[in-house]
Amino acid sequence: MKFFHVKTVAETLEVIAGEFKPNRPPIEVSLIDALDMVLAEDVFSEEQVPHFARSTVDGYAVRARDTYGASDSLPAFLDVTGKIDMGKSAVQPVKEGQAQSIPTGGMVPDGADSVVMIEHVEEVDDLLNVYRQVAPGENVIRAGDDVEKGDRVIAAGQRLRPQDLGVLSAIGKTSVRVYPRPIVAILSTGDEIVPADKKVLSPGEIRDINSITVATAARQCGAHVIYGGIVPDDYESFAKRAKDLFEQSDLLLLSGGSSVGTRDYTEQVMQSLGDPGVLVHGVSIKPGKPTIIAKAGAKPVVGLPGHPASALIIFHLFVAPLIQRLQGQKPAAYVSRISARISRNIASAVGRSDYIRVKLEEREDGLWAVPVFGKSGLISTLVKSDGMVEISANKEGILEGEAVYVHLFQ
Amino acid sequence: MKFFHVKTVAETLEVIAGEFKPNRPPIEVSLIDALDMVLAEDVFSEEQVPHFARSTVDGYAVRARDTYGASDSLPAFLDVTGKIDMGKSAVQPVKEGQAQSIPTGGMVPDGADSVVMIEHVEEVDDLLNVYRQVAPGENVIRAGDDVEKGDRVIAAGQRLRPQDLGVLSAIGKTSVRVYPRPIVAILSTGDEIVPADKKVLSPGEIRDINSITVATAARQCGAHVIYGGIVPDDYESFAKRAKDLFEQSDLLLLSGGSSVGTRDYTEQVMQSLGDPGVLVHGVSIKPGKPTIIAKAGAKPVVGLPGHPASALIIFHLFVAPLIQRLQGQKPAAYVSRISARISRNIASAVGRSDYIRVKLEEREDGLWAVPVFGKSGLISTLVKSDGMVEISANKEGILEGEAVYVHLFQ
Repeated sequence: MKFFHVKTVAETLEVIAGEFKPNRPPIEVSLIDALDMVLAEDVFSEEQVPHFARSTVDGYAVRARDTYGASDSLPAFLDVTGKIDMGKSAVQPVKEGQAQSIPTGGMVPDGADSVVMIEHVEEVDDLLNVYRQVAPGENVIRAGDDVEKGDRVIAAGQRLRPQDLGVLSAIGKTSVRVYPRPIVAILSTGDEIVPADKKVLSPGEIRDINSITVATAARQCGAHVIYGGIVPDDYESFAKRAKDLFEQSDLLLLSGGSSVGTRDYTEQVMQSLGDPGVLVHGVSIKPGKPTIIAKAGAKPVVGLPGHPASALIIFHLFVAPLIQRLQGQKPAAYVSRISARISRNIASAVGRSDYIRVKLEEREDGLWAVPVFGKSGLISTLVKSDGMVEISANKEGILEGEAVYVHLFQ
Repeated sequence: MKFFHVKTVAETLEVIAGEFKPNRPPIEVSLIDALDMVLAEDVFSEEQVPHFARSTVDGYAVRARDTYGASDSLPAFLDVTGKIDMGKSAVQPVKEGQAQSIPTGGMVPDGADSVVMIEHVEEVDDLLNVYRQVAPGENVIRAGDDVEKGDRVIAAGQRLRPQDLGVLSAIGKTSVRVYPRPIVAILSTGDEIVPADKKVLSPGEIRDINSITVATAARQCGAHVIYGGIVPDDYESFAKRAKDLFEQSDLLLLSGGSSVGTRDYTEQVMQSLGDPGVLVHGVSIKPGKPTIIAKAGAKPVVGLPGHPASALIIFHLFVAPLIQRLQGQKPAAYVSRISARISRNIASAVGRSDYIRVKLEEREDGLWAVPVFGKSGLISTLVKSDGMVEISANKEGILEGEAVYVHLFQ
């Protein structure tokens, strides 16, 4: 029997970052299927984007020096020698004293280095009066301005957003290598837990809440989900079902009961899945202290607190970053959070991180975070909340009006 | 021919909020499929949650008054008359001077009004020494504490989050009525645009970027997507394809070329789809001024700017709220944004809202928003950005170090 001391939130996040990585090799998927998946390798461009100089306005392609000094009172005069068609190559170059009409997005012909806007010219019988001078490069996107040949357009570890898929399209990539979506299995335990579709409850029974909250939260993180159902508080059946699910998944989540007996089972079952076993046994956090994190082989197993609201808060804090690790996602350069002021004093114990559920209110003087109180077992407290505020372990509390960061629930 | 004056961002958002609502009737879906969909009707509970009083600790169910004054030096003595099993009804009541052992989550028996924690008692041969007094209700969740019979647990218009599905499970709902996901069709136009899978480009050609960026952004908003492909700059084929797609969809997005000729086509095609026709023709915004919003029958049609980065910014500002309207989603009580300081001075024109792409940097003194510059046509500027900062129409610019809100790109 090993002994553990309770870890801080930061220590727990370090364990997650240090111990886990993608379990399965990258796969190749089409761009359309790659949304929100994580790129497994750097992507370099083999082309310039655009691969030709383009006009950014409707107007006339010219040599800038031919327009120098042009003004309303003293226009420059150029010969119009052609017209650029959209999507077509320019046929002839622009020589000294010449201009060619060009649409927005059209290809700037050889010889021309700029485009004068249609608003600043007048064309009379192939003679162009230019009333404003342009500088070299004006109103032109040069070849390679967007992407140069050899540029790394996206780095490995990036979760692919619409704009990322856009730049991949631009360079002609139609598929990319990404990490497969992790498979997350969820098993609820507890003699009092009955399936959510049981119509009439007997005294002492409650419906399974964690299966759906944790499963859907995992889906929001990009995981595929296996619903493991409910096992009674019996070591043999719990251990057997857990082993089956562990073998089918990349991450096993056990939503345990909260009684001492059940917690002991949960820990034993986690140890039984393989070495090195339990890494974190208890976190100095409220709610969610009885969280357990284990590693069996290379795969993570997490024992979540049984109270639904606690389970979901622990999910946000630890399981979401864990799923990101399993997808090879590089940590963001910033924490996504919004600033508000807390609407009342809240006391907290030093040495423990408290997570306060809050509702956001946009008032005349800014955004306020209004605490939603209730025992950690109450799922309704989370339904009424927009996010949570951390009172860090080194603080005794927060004062009314104090600036806080709110971590939004998705 | 109607004449339009350019609208502000706020006026455009008012048009969207005032003119559009769900086109199709609600559907019934299972809870598992309801994640991120929008509830179409208020849900009331027909039950109490929990439907019996539960212990929140391992301990003994007692009558609080029997423990009054108990302390380490002067314990109260109670007879242990039973043991509550998890998930089972309590068999007999707790009478004066009695106690029954109870696990966390167990059903508190009749007569008992509180639970004394196992840490604060000693049981010797069915005699319980109680070393700490408890108050009535202590360590007990009463029937209905989480949800009362008749409570409105979730209001119509709520996008269903994991915790919302959790409370629905708790009250025994296995399916809910939600608005169907809107079908969004996307059609790209432009003689220079070629499919993204074309390997080798001819001079003057560029690959289609907007189809994938706009389609995947629409998916992130919960929409189903129809890819309409690319039509050349020819009124007849453009109008015909647009009409086909309009009939199959709840929202048609036209990603037009940016030349004057193409913009005229786009407007004509939008008018041809039905009355009342164009509602917004140009927005005082940079980038994205040539945005067009029309209504044909009850359905919206949006003409996006052709430049990929502009198109995606306009999507975030106007199309995402429009898709929310089509799903019946009630506006959030707050704007999701994060606070940072801008890393340099940026000038802006009064009377126009500017959207500056920024990259976020977590520095020792807090979060900074570093502008990513580049012409609005460059998709790479969006790839390098984490979000955007608005310089509102009444401002001449922002100064280095000024606090700004960053709207994150998903």
